[in-house]
Amino acid sequence: MKAVRVHEYGKPPSIDDVPEPTLQGPLDVLVHVDAAGVCRTDLHIIEGQWAEASGVGLPYVIGHENAGTVVEVGDAVRNVAVGDKVILHPLVTCGLCPPCRRGDDVHCENGEFPGISRDGGMAEFLRTNARSVVRLAEGLAPVDVAALADAGLTAQHAVRKAVPLLPATARAVVIGAGGLGHIGLQCLLAMTPAEVTVVDRSADALAKAASLGAHRTVQAGDDTVAEVLDALGGTGAEVVFDFVGEHGTEAEGIAMTRDTGSYYVIGYGGAVEVPTLEIINREISIVGNKVGSYTDLRELMALAARGLVTLSTKQYPLASALEALDDLDGGRLPGTRAILVP
Amino acid sequence: MKAVRVHEYGKPPSIDDVPEPTLQGPLDVLVHVDAAGVCRTDLHIIEGQWAEASGVGLPYVIGHENAGTVVEVGDAVRNVAVGDKVILHPLVTCGLCPPCRRGDDVHCENGEFPGISRDGGMAEFLRTNARSVVRLAEGLAPVDVAALADAGLTAQHAVRKAVPLLPATARAVVIGAGGLGHIGLQCLLAMTPAEVTVVDRSADALAKAASLGAHRTVQAGDDTVAEVLDALGGTGAEVVFDFVGEHGTEAEGIAMTRDTGSYYVIGYGGAVEVPTLEIINREISIVGNKVGSYTDLRELMALAARGLVTLSTKQYPLASALEALDDLDGGRLPGTRAILVP
Amino acid sequence: MKAVRVHEYGKPPSIDDVPEPTLQGPLDVLVHVDAAGVCRTDLHIIEGQWAEASGVGLPYVIGHENAGTVVEVGDAVRNVAVGDKVILHPLVTCGLCPPCRRGDDVHCENGEFPGISRDGGMAEFLRTNARSVVRLAEGLAPVDVAALADAGLTAQHAVRKAVPLLPATARAVVIGAGGLGHIGLQCLLAMTPAEVTVVDRSADALAKAASLGAHRTVQAGDDTVAEVLDALGGTGAEVVFDFVGEHGTEAEGIAMTRDTGSYYVIGYGGAVEVPTLEIINREISIVGNKVGSYTDLRELMALAARGLVTLSTKQYPLASALEALDDLDGGRLPGTRAILVP
Amino acid sequence: MKAVRVHEYGKPPSIDDVPEPTLQGPLDVLVHVDAAGVCRTDLHIIEGQWAEASGVGLPYVIGHENAGTVVEVGDAVRNVAVGDKVILHPLVTCGLCPPCRRGDDVHCENGEFPGISRDGGMAEFLRTNARSVVRLAEGLAPVDVAALADAGLTAQHAVRKAVPLLPATARAVVIGAGGLGHIGLQCLLAMTPAEVTVVDRSADALAKAASLGAHRTVQAGDDTVAEVLDALGGTGAEVVFDFVGEHGTEAEGIAMTRDTGSYYVIGYGGAVEVPTLEIINREISIVGNKVGSYTDLRELMALAARGLVTLSTKQYPLASALEALDDLDGGRLPGTRAILVP
Repeated sequence: MKAVRVHEYGKPPSIDDVPEPTLQGPLDVLVHVDAAGVCRTDLHIIEGQWAEASGVGLPYVIGHENAGTVVEVGDAVRNVAVGDKVILHPLVTCGLCPPCRRGDDVHCENGEFPGISRDGGMAEFLRTNARSVVRLAEGLAPVDVAALADAGLTAQHAVRKAVPLLPATARAVVIGAGGLGHIGLQCLLAMTPAEVTVVDRSADALAKAASLGAHRTVQAGDDTVAEVLDALGGTGAEVVFDFVGEHGTEAEGIAMTRDTGSYYVIGYGGAVEVPTLEIINREISIVGNKVGSYTDLRELMALAARGLVTLSTKQYPLASALEALDDLDGGRLPGTRAILVP
Repeated sequence: MKAVRVHEYGKPPSIDDVPEPTLQGPLDVLVHVDAAGVCRTDLHIIEGQWAEASGVGLPYVIGHENAGTVVEVGDAVRNVAVGDKVILHPLVTCGLCPPCRRGDDVHCENGEFPGISRDGGMAEFLRTNARSVVRLAEGLAPVDVAALADAGLTAQHAVRKAVPLLPATARAVVIGAGGLGHIGLQCLLAMTPAEVTVVDRSADALAKAASLGAHRTVQAGDDTVAEVLDALGGTGAEVVFDFVGEHGTEAEGIAMTRDTGSYYVIGYGGAVEVPTLEIINREISIVGNKVGSYTDLRELMALAARGLVTLSTKQYPLASALEALDDLDGGRLPGTRAILVP
Repeated sequence: MKAVRVHEYGKPPSIDDVPEPTLQGPLDVLVHVDAAGVCRTDLHIIEGQWAEASGVGLPYVIGHENAGTVVEVGDAVRNVAVGDKVILHPLVTCGLCPPCRRGDDVHCENGEFPGISRDGGMAEFLRTNARSVVRLAEGLAPVDVAALADAGLTAQHAVRKAVPLLPATARAVVIGAGGLGHIGLQCLLAMTPAEVTVVDRSADALAKAASLGAHRTVQAGDDTVAEVLDALGGTGAEVVFDFVGEHGTEAEGIAMTRDTGSYYVIGYGGAVEVPTLEIINREISIVGNKVGSYTDLRELMALAARGLVTLSTKQYPLASALEALDDLDGGRLPGTRAILVP
Repeated sequence: MKAVRVHEYGKPPSIDDVPEPTLQGPLDVLVHVDAAGVCRTDLHIIEGQWAEASGVGLPYVIGHENAGTVVEVGDAVRNVAVGDKVILHPLVTCGLCPPCRRGDDVHCENGEFPGISRDGGMAEFLRTNARSVVRLAEGLAPVDVAALADAGLTAQHAVRKAVPLLPATARAVVIGAGGLGHIGLQCLLAMTPAEVTVVDRSADALAKAASLGAHRTVQAGDDTVAEVLDALGGTGAEVVFDFVGEHGTEAEGIAMTRDTGSYYVIGYGGAVEVPTLEIINREISIVGNKVGSYTDLRELMALAARGLVTLSTKQYPLASALEALDDLDGGRLPGTRAILVP
């Protein structure tokens, strides 16, 4: 089959002919990949930034946002059948360790990450397991949801954790209305009655946020914090979702958080630096957010099935994967996700 | 001033000239009543059903869903000022007992209930205290929100308690789409991403529910439970909100609740009867719901201010209170709340 | 191997020679049963009360409270190894359905119950799967903990659910200080700072409860409710745990529950009957409790390993199983669990 | 009356004759101070560190950990009566703002802090209000509990927030077993079944922690983090309570926190510095903790009444306040709180 493989960090991947994956265990599931999202993390992998963390051997197949059709299942698989349309949770988990047993499979003690730590989905077929497949509802096509498998799931997970903090009297701030941020915005509007303010440098991104239903938008500039606080009546937001996490948004996000509020870290690259005196005097929380669980992915698919979370996408044939990666790298896909299709 | 007073149970109230109320304590607030909701409980009071529970002496002024304008405040009042438009929480609470201190003021150990246990709001003026007044946002008029003060607040409170149980993958059932039920429906749609099924005997009520956004409606009949379970795929709902609570909805509601789900009691008149074996085997919860707290009322006003909760109302002059009560009693106000105005 | 099998409902089981169970799937685990608890449910099974609910074919091996030593594991088992001492969660679950995925494996859509719906543990060997085995800490012997696998786990689970309701200012009432109740008492004392009152008809049971640390005991009699309410200052308890659930404790338990409190149903046999008006006016909850999850069982074992939950047991050889069942049936094991050993 | 007043920052306070305070509002309460704790914050106030934050005018009376006897109450006070023994919540709050209404009175929008922002309790009498007084149970003397009013309440509050995170399978780490830390330890042991490890530089403090029931103690040194992680099996603690918050414990505490765990900041002086990548990859939370609420103080008094939280104290006559301050400053009160008595 065709597959997009990285052979050497710092060089473009190539599209190779490789053997199709085969089932290796009783819970394995073989999926025909109908749609594979192209993500900024793929660029970072190609550059080599993940080499040490993933420890993966080269060459290997990238692609960690996948949806498709089940083509073969192991003996112990009972939750999907051949022919089912599915989206794939990005992690392959064991189901037996304490985190898996309490539903926190993202922190599985034996988890693997196809597309990062082993062969992924920019290929015709992908091997995953029964614990990673969510059947799609009628009306949802793999190509429409693939990009929700990782980026979208991270945004949904952060919002799900914040639901108890966000009644209708509360204010949420979304910093960064790009790929994750505008999914986060849609999740906030669907899952909470809170008032939502979106902050971004791009007027286009803010216009899109407004069209999706953001209650207020603020263009980031020299006085972002003052402008946001002013708009919120001086007290800050109950929850600030920082989808950027670098270039100063860390300090700005904490400054926009009201006393007793929470600063949710989702984007990364920078660092949080805050005196312990401020943390206690304002009684704030700083909350990390990773990708969502299988249960979270089921919720995200329920939102998508009802049209409450949508994505703007552009399809590329698998054979044009390098063009898609290049368009992403070149900033030619603002507000749009590239999706590889067979 | 004019006031609607009950003189003898079982007889219509009369509209009397009575002295205006005066401040009696440092936290008291005197309100000009711009709008007083007419509620089925008023009919029950007039019939004498509340005589023993309230222990109130006759004659007294009824009316427990009030909104208006602050005209005088006690020395210790700092949260409202003369001229403020306000909605009144139905209870007057002490603020010092343990429930008040943890925010559960509805269960105040020293609470009073104007319109039930002391003079209420079907009058030109009403005495309440600083703990009962919520300032209305710009754009909200007393006449639009008065009926949310008790009935609406009860519906909002039940939904608020259920929020953690209602992700997008969950199903809620609303039994009874009348006065409370259609507020409950709007709260569910605004505050949770759950799928909502509404059950009622009235096709008109269901049509209204559908127009408000209910995902599914089921007309109650001989096979209501089977029909609902069938529509939900056989397993019942995570939360069933019973706004009727009599005439068999108690058993039907529990039968529509899925294993590990919750049956929320809001309406009353009947009784829950269920074997302990069923309670444990299905691990269900049966959850009582009273009126919401002050904090809940603030959330409900935030929802109303954004247009997420609306009421259909019909205004009557205070002098026509008996006509309004009669119209309600005679079933001539389906889906509409009578509001007394000065 | 030897096994205690029911051949005909209403007649004593017999101890038969049967083939040893064998692995049937990649996640199966074969356990040498070092200890099997004898439970009142076994008597009910023999009498035929579970015939319809379990649908099991006769003859079959009873015994659902098991601990022992792993002797063989399937290919996909990674969490235990041959030789490990383990306690067995009573359910064998699939790990793939939505409840399993969120950690609520007790409500597995494909669960089986060895000893009830298939061959159980009153035998030399038992087949279970990797999802049911919890490794025992150093110092815990199968014979000491086997009876915690079902009865104890139910008590722990109810207390775990109630933890948020039980700060040091709250009062808990335990109705019934028998097998489950005295485990529940120990869990309450270990897991919450609440004040605990124990109610039972037996002075011996109350003496034992007091020795375990109950803050107050009340002997059940003609005026149990009045006596308990009086002892609690008139207002009832935040949580009432009813380990009896029949013979009138249902009404008494609800009467002992304070406004906004919860009545936890654990024992069964009777029925809850309460007007919807009382449920809403007092805003009480009635909460069903089934056996605990795998995560709960891990917590219970952690409590046992620290000596915070202990059981009084009497050992019988497997060959004397009928004598153990007879002693239980004849009331000759008050406060003590019979444990079958090889 | 006699009162300890600061006249000039950087100089010792003096003991002055000043007029007794008088009631100023209907909710005011006048208390005879039977016990006033001497706290490190008093030293910081005297040094001038709080001058800007408090904005208080000089001279004024310090002392913010107070317990005593009610001697006069305002017209609207219903929860205490003259002669009642009480402990004083450190804040005087309004009861009307949104935080007060939801039980979060610590974040009152109109709060005052006797002893910091207005005259405090190192005096014969103190003016507070009805919202700050908790009646003491039989058997609790003001002198035994005064020091719990601020320091102890902060420790209890942090533990109360962490209760849902700390089942018996979880591990807590307490950094710093001094004044607050050893109250925190006692709260952890009383309120949760978690395993507790205490870290301190002082062998004496660790010995005391062990005698109070700490499951493990680790003497802080060059390799504290490695030693703690090793003792916990390599994975860190579900919750790390940092009662120091400076001199490097910030980084050490985060390093001792397991993935998905929480680092609770209570002590202060340093700063948290952590990459956003680490926050998200480990999905950790950093949680600020201020003093507890009135409801928290009620729980702490319930714990104290049952002997579950105790303090080692040394009494000084009010006239010897300077000696007490000097002993504290000179390190002559390790593990002991100085209490001023009339």
